[in-house]
Amino acid sequence: MMRIDNRKNNQLRPVKITRNFIKHAEGSVLIEVGDTKVICTATVDEKVPPFLKGEGKGWVTAEYSMLPRATGNRNIREAAKGKQSGRTLEIQRLIGRALRSVVDLKALGERTVWLDCDVIQADGGTRTASITGAFVALVEAMQGLVEQKKIKSLPITDYLAATSVGLVEDDLLLDLAFTEDSNATVDMNIVITGKGNIVEVQGTGEENPFSEQQFLQLYALAKEGIAKLITIQKEALGEIMTEGE
Amino acid sequence: MMRIDNRKNNQLRPVKITRNFIKHAEGSVLIEVGDTKVICTATVDEKVPPFLKGEGKGWVTAEYSMLPRATGNRNIREAAKGKQSGRTLEIQRLIGRALRSVVDLKALGERTVWLDCDVIQADGGTRTASITGAFVALVEAMQGLVEQKKIKSLPITDYLAATSVGLVEDDLLLDLAFTEDSNATVDMNIVITGKGNIVEVQGTGEENPFSEQQFLQLYALAKEGIAKLITIQKEALGEIMTEGE
Amino acid sequence: MMRIDNRKNNQLRPVKITRNFIKHAEGSVLIEVGDTKVICTATVDEKVPPFLKGEGKGWVTAEYSMLPRATGNRNIREAAKGKQSGRTLEIQRLIGRALRSVVDLKALGERTVWLDCDVIQADGGTRTASITGAFVALVEAMQGLVEQKKIKSLPITDYLAATSVGLVEDDLLLDLAFTEDSNATVDMNIVITGKGNIVEVQGTGEENPFSEQQFLQLYALAKEGIAKLITIQKEALGEIMTEGE
Amino acid sequence: MMRIDNRKNNQLRPVKITRNFIKHAEGSVLIEVGDTKVICTATVDEKVPPFLKGEGKGWVTAEYSMLPRATGNRNIREAAKGKQSGRTLEIQRLIGRALRSVVDLKALGERTVWLDCDVIQADGGTRTASITGAFVALVEAMQGLVEQKKIKSLPITDYLAATSVGLVEDDLLLDLAFTEDSNATVDMNIVITGKGNIVEVQGTGEENPFSEQQFLQLYALAKEGIAKLITIQKEALGEIMTEGE
Amino acid sequence: MMRIDNRKNNQLRPVKITRNFIKHAEGSVLIEVGDTKVICTATVDEKVPPFLKGEGKGWVTAEYSMLPRATGNRNIREAAKGKQSGRTLEIQRLIGRALRSVVDLKALGERTVWLDCDVIQADGGTRTASITGAFVALVEAMQGLVEQKKIKSLPITDYLAATSVGLVEDDLLLDLAFTEDSNATVDMNIVITGKGNIVEVQGTGEENPFSEQQFLQLYALAKEGIAKLITIQKEALGEIMTEGE
Amino acid sequence: MMRIDNRKNNQLRPVKITRNFIKHAEGSVLIEVGDTKVICTATVDEKVPPFLKGEGKGWVTAEYSMLPRATGNRNIREAAKGKQSGRTLEIQRLIGRALRSVVDLKALGERTVWLDCDVIQADGGTRTASITGAFVALVEAMQGLVEQKKIKSLPITDYLAATSVGLVEDDLLLDLAFTEDSNATVDMNIVITGKGNIVEVQGTGEENPFSEQQFLQLYALAKEGIAKLITIQKEALGEIMTEGE
Repeated sequence: MMRIDNRKNNQLRPVKITRNFIKHAEGSVLIEVGDTKVICTATVDEKVPPFLKGEGKGWVTAEYSMLPRATGNRNIREAAKGKQSGRTLEIQRLIGRALRSVVDLKALGERTVWLDCDVIQADGGTRTASITGAFVALVEAMQGLVEQKKIKSLPITDYLAATSVGLVEDDLLLDLAFTEDSNATVDMNIVITGKGNIVEVQGTGEENPFSEQQFLQLYALAKEGIAKLITIQKEALGEIMTEGE
Repeated sequence: MMRIDNRKNNQLRPVKITRNFIKHAEGSVLIEVGDTKVICTATVDEKVPPFLKGEGKGWVTAEYSMLPRATGNRNIREAAKGKQSGRTLEIQRLIGRALRSVVDLKALGERTVWLDCDVIQADGGTRTASITGAFVALVEAMQGLVEQKKIKSLPITDYLAATSVGLVEDDLLLDLAFTEDSNATVDMNIVITGKGNIVEVQGTGEENPFSEQQFLQLYALAKEGIAKLITIQKEALGEIMTEGE
Repeated sequence: MMRIDNRKNNQLRPVKITRNFIKHAEGSVLIEVGDTKVICTATVDEKVPPFLKGEGKGWVTAEYSMLPRATGNRNIREAAKGKQSGRTLEIQRLIGRALRSVVDLKALGERTVWLDCDVIQADGGTRTASITGAFVALVEAMQGLVEQKKIKSLPITDYLAATSVGLVEDDLLLDLAFTEDSNATVDMNIVITGKGNIVEVQGTGEENPFSEQQFLQLYALAKEGIAKLITIQKEALGEIMTEGE
Repeated sequence: MMRIDNRKNNQLRPVKITRNFIKHAEGSVLIEVGDTKVICTATVDEKVPPFLKGEGKGWVTAEYSMLPRATGNRNIREAAKGKQSGRTLEIQRLIGRALRSVVDLKALGERTVWLDCDVIQADGGTRTASITGAFVALVEAMQGLVEQKKIKSLPITDYLAATSVGLVEDDLLLDLAFTEDSNATVDMNIVITGKGNIVEVQGTGEENPFSEQQFLQLYALAKEGIAKLITIQKEALGEIMTEGE
Repeated sequence: MMRIDNRKNNQLRPVKITRNFIKHAEGSVLIEVGDTKVICTATVDEKVPPFLKGEGKGWVTAEYSMLPRATGNRNIREAAKGKQSGRTLEIQRLIGRALRSVVDLKALGERTVWLDCDVIQADGGTRTASITGAFVALVEAMQGLVEQKKIKSLPITDYLAATSVGLVEDDLLLDLAFTEDSNATVDMNIVITGKGNIVEVQGTGEENPFSEQQFLQLYALAKEGIAKLITIQKEALGEIMTEGE
Repeated sequence: MMRIDNRKNNQLRPVKITRNFIKHAEGSVLIEVGDTKVICTATVDEKVPPFLKGEGKGWVTAEYSMLPRATGNRNIREAAKGKQSGRTLEIQRLIGRALRSVVDLKALGERTVWLDCDVIQADGGTRTASITGAFVALVEAMQGLVEQKKIKSLPITDYLAATSVGLVEDDLLLDLAFTEDSNATVDMNIVITGKGNIVEVQGTGEENPFSEQQFLQLYALAKEGIAKLITIQKEALGEIMTEGE
């Protein structure tokens, strides 16, 4: 089976990270993964949520949204409906959780970094593109804190990126575009660090339960893709980790 | 390390499934997994959601809730707050998706089965207990449809159960109780079928990314536990699958 | 006319009170009145609502809900609809108000007791069963406060129970089951104390206004039934009132 | 004890009913009971709610609200808060239920009459003034239907009015003003028809349970007051009931 | 073209301002402009909104609503819908902004005046009648503050009134009644002070863009009408401005 | 006074219109006015709102939003708050109304065009930039309908653009940037067509009422600016109006 854009099964779509995309934000990135485009901004708030007050540590949280016309059909605006969908809440919980796994919250100090991931154009993989882009915006914002001498060094313990993999007919595919995703019987989102550790694995076989072997092959494919995404992050950010880390 | 209730690391808590628990429902179960207790009811609705109208197939969906005092501290009632939390929405999406993976929706016909999972007492693992219990309630409701001759045979393609596993300090533990779950650095929820296929894998290392090896060991532990849960389901339901399935 | 379950007109359904039903709550009861089953939990909160701050007295309040499949047809979950119905709000206001009438709020001190009444199976009389059961859960919670020496003695001034009565065709019936309630032209809910004082009388003749005489007969029937309910509470709780009270 | 406005214990405040108060409505009344002022409008809607479709009968329903500054302190507008309070819902359910008890819904035909009761100035007894005033607006609207020959005769089976009574210190008082109501230990709202039948009795002893004797005395006081209110309604409406009714 | 009520094109409808209309409010007015009737109350709140805390100045804000049956067809109550419409929010923002333009917020001190404008009967021009009436209620409330010696002198810098003008077919009309407004191709709301300065101009040509000349003619018409409205305010209030102002 | 970016008082900021900005939408534009950047998409929906059904004409409507970090401080997401602010509703009503004034709704036929204006970076004038950009997206979408032969010719009667003007200290300024807008005592938003007709004038002197002369000078400034904006629209779109129009 030929992929829609002639990619190889283990090939990522072209990825482009544009830094300092929004002038007001402490960190901001436009990440493009094929036709998926997400604006990720990082906001530093010198407060923590109530459950962390006085704990001597910070917080990292995320919000996710799609413009109504990011997709082929117009979606009703969640602000107009008056509530965020389960899908939105699930995705933003995932983004926040994933980013926190590579942040030293104590070293961050009693402040919150908000990551806003707004999809302006969607073609599959919006949640994984959000994680990959938000990581860069988060680092930008934290570099600002270092420059302002609010913290001594970057409270980041590792790089972090995410991608999707899936089983479409009998093919194991990396980085699914929307039409591929719609036809996948198994769909996995995987978040991995620069050192190759797992942060999140979410695999679903809604229509067809799948075998352990398929699971392991898909995992391997994702791992390979994420290594490439982290190379692209390094190009965008420069080397941020010092030896000892 | 000794587990709080002296269980072995690969040992489930006592599991009890009480059938026909609520007299009005088409299927209903009280599932107890240690001190976690969930009422699962199945309701047959002779309609499908709008997106399925005229498609000649049915739907299975779930809702999840906890009584305010199911937990150590009282939670504000979601009906009083006026919205369901992200956690609730995420869990009920998971339950519905998992159950649909073993239902032949065409054979079910144009009707919806609602699974309501209401946690009356919580001690960890409420989402996986909900899946394991809701499967039984779902089968009960479908057996009713067969008896009423609305469908010819049970549109169930496999058994289905779920459990949690996690890494607590250096121990790999099966079926985490609440205090274990709170201390886990890695937490996985796994849904597997009677034939051993994977339906859902959700692994999270919020504080600590984890290695592939740990992932594989945890998966093996879950698989073993789920096989036992399915034995318990079979005792509750009798044998429902015929040879050829 | 024969009643659906062959009861006499002035006969209660079988009543069963199971104490300590939910392990986390400060007080908890499963009350069964025929096929009506309600979990009542009491939560002690060491705060009072804003309007009572600094007044040197406590508060008792209630919340009420039904599981979606407590009834013959599935009700949409109020948390999913995003608001509580007028019926729910009216019932929980009634429960809270009734319980406060037998509590010495000054003696309780600046704390709130929350009563959660969750109907898991409904067959008429859920609000009156909630009051009767919640009274027991409330006493349990207050006994805990006495044991912890937070208060000196039980701040309860009297027993309290409730039942419904109604006019069905020409029969005056005690403790209406759901089908009886649906056919009643007059429907009354009455809350009375152990000493025979009235706490709440709510009588409605939606379709047919009724005479004073019918009103007095119904009241007498309720009074008789409530005396029996209080006997059952005493069996469950032991004697809690000292002589002088 | 002298009443605040020197009334006798069994004396109503001055009552004034102004008909045709709002030009657009099918029925409309300004009712003044002392300083309590309520605009009651009746709207005829040629539809019935979904649960009555095709049943060949009509519906009567009510909504209640207070202007923010109807009271001594400004209340936050319910539209701004985004929900109606339990008190509001309870009152409007009561008004609708009471009015339906004297309407022949079959004779009304498949249409709905909406009664809107908007309190522009409050001084106690707003719910009972609303019922007494809304009855007149309802009759006005139905007289319009008779004039338009949509129905043959007035589908009203009896007059209907309401008042409050209460126990303040040791006095049994009719038609409580706000300050009296605030000091009452027992508070009852009673709705009675022209023929003296009971439609609704709601008595509450929040702080002090009360005796049967007190109950009966309060009831008698209310009955007397309501007879006078119905006389005032008759003056406003003229005689609407024919002999045989 | 003859106007519906035989007015001249540059003629206002009869205007009547009744002061002290609601006994509880610090200021209150019933304003009648033809068949449009609005209750305007002013509430003094000894707090300011969070964004003004510690700024040493006060705030004036407004809320607007229509009773459901103020209009020919019944409007669904915003409290029942659970949100205020865009129209409502736009109007109340306009009223608040207009009134603030003639208030010396520093002289008012750290307190808020709430203006509630509740339309009890609508026949066009409800927002401009609200402004004209609310100005009087605001002055009443501020006179109370002066009397109570909370402020030294009236912190009002000028009179303020509003009216609508529009283009109906080829006629330029002052003070549009509802049916005129419905047929207008250009509709303007104008707020002007006693000294003839502009506070707000809102002109809309939804169906037909309009010329500058038409704009200027409409503006002149409004100016003339507002001068008359201010004369009526002066009659209601007496002279409130001292020479030097 | 020198303007912040050295512009002359009657000079627009640099304006850039990028067409076909979002691949899925029927029309889409990125409009940049200085540092204000708005994505405007047009969606064609082959339905009309209920109030237009069967009227043989179409509808044009708009929605407006800002990304949380479009501004210097992060704004709480309206979808998270559960409602759109009054400001948002007011702006989107303005955008829709303005665009409808240059559309021949009959010629459009029974379909709706939705304009979504999402501000990704804000520096003043977001509502007027939205109108100017949305006009281009609307034309793009309608050109698509002509190409698909769903309509015969472009149902657009004139060009349409908008800008803001204001009084800052004593200077009359065109096209206010955010800091200028914050200091303006008079602020006007004006929408004018290609032929110089007025569609909307909204002028507000919140802190200081202003004179007629100032009003006329500001209007003249806006008119000049809008003529330039329409030239830029023409460059982006090519000539779309035929002679006779």
